Amino acid sequence: MFTQINSYIEANKDRFLNELLELLRIPSISADPTYKKDVLRTADAVKEKLISAGADKVQLCPTPGYPIVYGEKIISAKLPTVLVYGHYDVQPADPLNLWTSPPFEPVIKNKKIYARGSCDDKGQVYMHVKAFEAMMKTNSLPCNIKFMIEGEEEVGSANLGNFVKANKEKLKADVVLISDTSILANNIPSITVGLRGLAYMEVEVTGPNRDLHSGVYGGAVANPINVLAEMIASMKDKNGKITIPGFYKDVEIVSKKERAEMAKAPFSKKAYMKDLGVVDLRGEKGYSPTEQTSIRPTLELNGIWGGYMGEGAKTVLPSKAYAKISMRLVPHQNSDKISKLFEKHFKKIAPKSVKVIVTALHGGEGVVTPTDSVAYAAASRAMQDTFGKKPIPVRSGGSIPIVALFEKELSIKSVLMGFGLDSDNIHSPDECYGLFNYFKGIETIPLFFKYYAQNF
Amino acid sequence: MFTQINSYIEANKDRFLNELLELLRIPSISADPTYKKDVLRTADAVKEKLISAGADKVQLCPTPGYPIVYGEKIISAKLPTVLVYGHYDVQPADPLNLWTSPPFEPVIKNKKIYARGSCDDKGQVYMHVKAFEAMMKTNSLPCNIKFMIEGEEEVGSANLGNFVKANKEKLKADVVLISDTSILANNIPSITVGLRGLAYMEVEVTGPNRDLHSGVYGGAVANPINVLAEMIASMKDKNGKITIPGFYKDVEIVSKKERAEMAKAPFSKKAYMKDLGVVDLRGEKGYSPTEQTSIRPTLELNGIWGGYMGEGAKTVLPSKAYAKISMRLVPHQNSDKISKLFEKHFKKIAPKSVKVIVTALHGGEGVVTPTDSVAYAAASRAMQDTFGKKPIPVRSGGSIPIVALFEKELSIKSVLMGFGLDSDNIHSPDECYGLFNYFKGIETIPLFFKYYAQNF
Repeated sequence: MFTQINSYIEANKDRFLNELLELLRIPSISADPTYKKDVLRTADAVKEKLISAGADKVQLCPTPGYPIVYGEKIISAKLPTVLVYGHYDVQPADPLNLWTSPPFEPVIKNKKIYARGSCDDKGQVYMHVKAFEAMMKTNSLPCNIKFMIEGEEEVGSANLGNFVKANKEKLKADVVLISDTSILANNIPSITVGLRGLAYMEVEVTGPNRDLHSGVYGGAVANPINVLAEMIASMKDKNGKITIPGFYKDVEIVSKKERAEMAKAPFSKKAYMKDLGVVDLRGEKGYSPTEQTSIRPTLELNGIWGGYMGEGAKTVLPSKAYAKISMRLVPHQNSDKISKLFEKHFKKIAPKSVKVIVTALHGGEGVVTPTDSVAYAAASRAMQDTFGKKPIPVRSGGSIPIVALFEKELSIKSVLMGFGLDSDNIHSPDECYGLFNYFKGIETIPLFFKYYAQNF
Repeated sequence: MFTQINSYIEANKDRFLNELLELLRIPSISADPTYKKDVLRTADAVKEKLISAGADKVQLCPTPGYPIVYGEKIISAKLPTVLVYGHYDVQPADPLNLWTSPPFEPVIKNKKIYARGSCDDKGQVYMHVKAFEAMMKTNSLPCNIKFMIEGEEEVGSANLGNFVKANKEKLKADVVLISDTSILANNIPSITVGLRGLAYMEVEVTGPNRDLHSGVYGGAVANPINVLAEMIASMKDKNGKITIPGFYKDVEIVSKKERAEMAKAPFSKKAYMKDLGVVDLRGEKGYSPTEQTSIRPTLELNGIWGGYMGEGAKTVLPSKAYAKISMRLVPHQNSDKISKLFEKHFKKIAPKSVKVIVTALHGGEGVVTPTDSVAYAAASRAMQDTFGKKPIPVRSGGSIPIVALFEKELSIKSVLMGFGLDSDNIHSPDECYGLFNYFKGIETIPLFFKYYAQNF
């Protein structure tokens, strides 16, 4: 049977690639209202592709934001059901000038597809659509399947929670399968078993009520940029610990044994630094880079702006300065609670000479997924078959808040079987996705279904 | 004779105002190359106005940047010569959304002219053109006059130094008269007798060689915004003292007596804070706000930017962050020396995990002008005549680097007889200039010429 599926995939490779390129041409940037039509057009495209792959009840489920694409193929109530989750929206593409080729005109170079969304997550979602097609066309789908592809993941999945709560019966399943993560390398397969949560804040610091001349007023009046810089600086101590009171209170203590296990995963500090073009790293004292980016929470500036940003010199003492600050959270930390601690602290440390406004933009919880489940074993065996090596379970630094949501609302665990690479520049200029990875995913997914259905 | 001049001014008031409004309609933003044609158009307009006012040898003197408008009226080699300096370029107008009316469509509201450049410095330059016209048309110019109106003051007068050095004979004069400063209030006339210098820097901090996903890399890799914020914060201590080694070494020590004199100038902290919409001030410990903004040097952030500045949340760990940082200097501090100290210090405090580039954008020296000269006495008496009160000598926080330049290259002292108000929003949205101030300037200037020529 698997020869049949593989033959089908092999015979349709060019089409599978071209269809993905078509999808990548639509700039489905959910963060920017300018692209509203394109985001909706992408939802339609995903819907059409699910229909032609053989799904039933395919529909655009409306939300107050962008629609969720739903589809299913129910073979038998007696068989288990896999719920495939993914997202059709993408990150903004700026800074555009740093892209080698336009972000929405995909090109193949060095055996990789370069385009915004090629890896995160259109490429990885489309592997599932094509794997499903391959199983359908070869009459080899071994269990039920449901698709839930949303359009607001990159802006915090604000409407997914209510949708899930209102559609528990429709979404009923035994496991959630998600491809929105990475493997360690093309020759080192891995499965993500932990994700960090997120609390994303925007702050506004106002000094004087208008922009002032920095000569006439400078020296006596609080400059909101100076103040913001001081406030940001004070939020970490010299060991890289975050100084917000209570921030670490709920942080999961990872056992020595698990840390020792993690330390076995291949990691070359030298190669890591070379790839990033830096001569030194910088993180919380007492933890390795792998730990700093997985089991430890962070506080990162994602953006900052204020005053004169044009060419040349303008001697302004600005009225306002802004920053976007996000905290990655680890299991047991609650994003609402952390957002509130941040807000309280930020207001407390603001000097009387400025006013501050703190807005929580979005958040989600960290999660650890089981490695002793049938689903994990199926994913592990599927990858072992296609990569020729048993995948390593790893914790990832990114956040997929919906994993915690599915656990809470649907009581289903997830398997995070992603095929990207850390070097795919997701959220960056020149995002790419390897042809190897795209087709490896399409081959591996049907094996997951096979082993999962066999052992359920 | 002065009745004649005053009658002439009175009879031509409407025209004097309308001509200024015409000039304000040209967006002569020297910092932004987009406006190159407009800046050149403004130079032409100033030239035409000098010719029709009665000046001789009016010409656009080319420089590698924008031309300097020169004109003169030489009555007799035996009479003293006043060199009038001003600038026809203006500051950028952004943030545009904070203007109540468009910056280059002047309107009169509450007896003020609202437009970019209305006060700084088109309005104040044009007072001189019209005062000159009034003296010429009433045959009452009492001494020689030269005009030098440049187009690059707002970008650091980069080409003025060479022009002055190359044209010492042409510019030969006995005093420089400049109106590019303020009075304390419309009922408290004042003359600026000190100006701060300036060292304006731009810094670039680079972390990783590309924008990264803040989840995947956050925690281990230096974030250039966090690092820049820490570096900025460290450049002032808790008392507001600048921590750059050697920064205060050459700072002029102002005597207790002079500080006591300064303290007599009317200043209401309450009214000052109310005007700025703040409930607290913030400056160097041990000095009053008046001192902080005049006799003490500063370090101010004029702009900052990096990462994602759009709507919503983008989880990027950016590659680069930038800031514009300027230091106001006091007499004896040298701007080149301070720029070098800044650069050295900024590079020294940068952690190894980032790269920094420091660029000195422009600079100029602080200056103190004499209060015991014939020219100062003439300005003081002229203002006393028109305001009914003797003007107070004050040190201003702003910088007019060319004052030090004229002293050095031409060996001429300047008189800073400005008519603006601190509340004129120069360099800010809603820049304005009072009709009272515009016409008061036109009336006062001929009196300066009269008393200066009488007592020379």
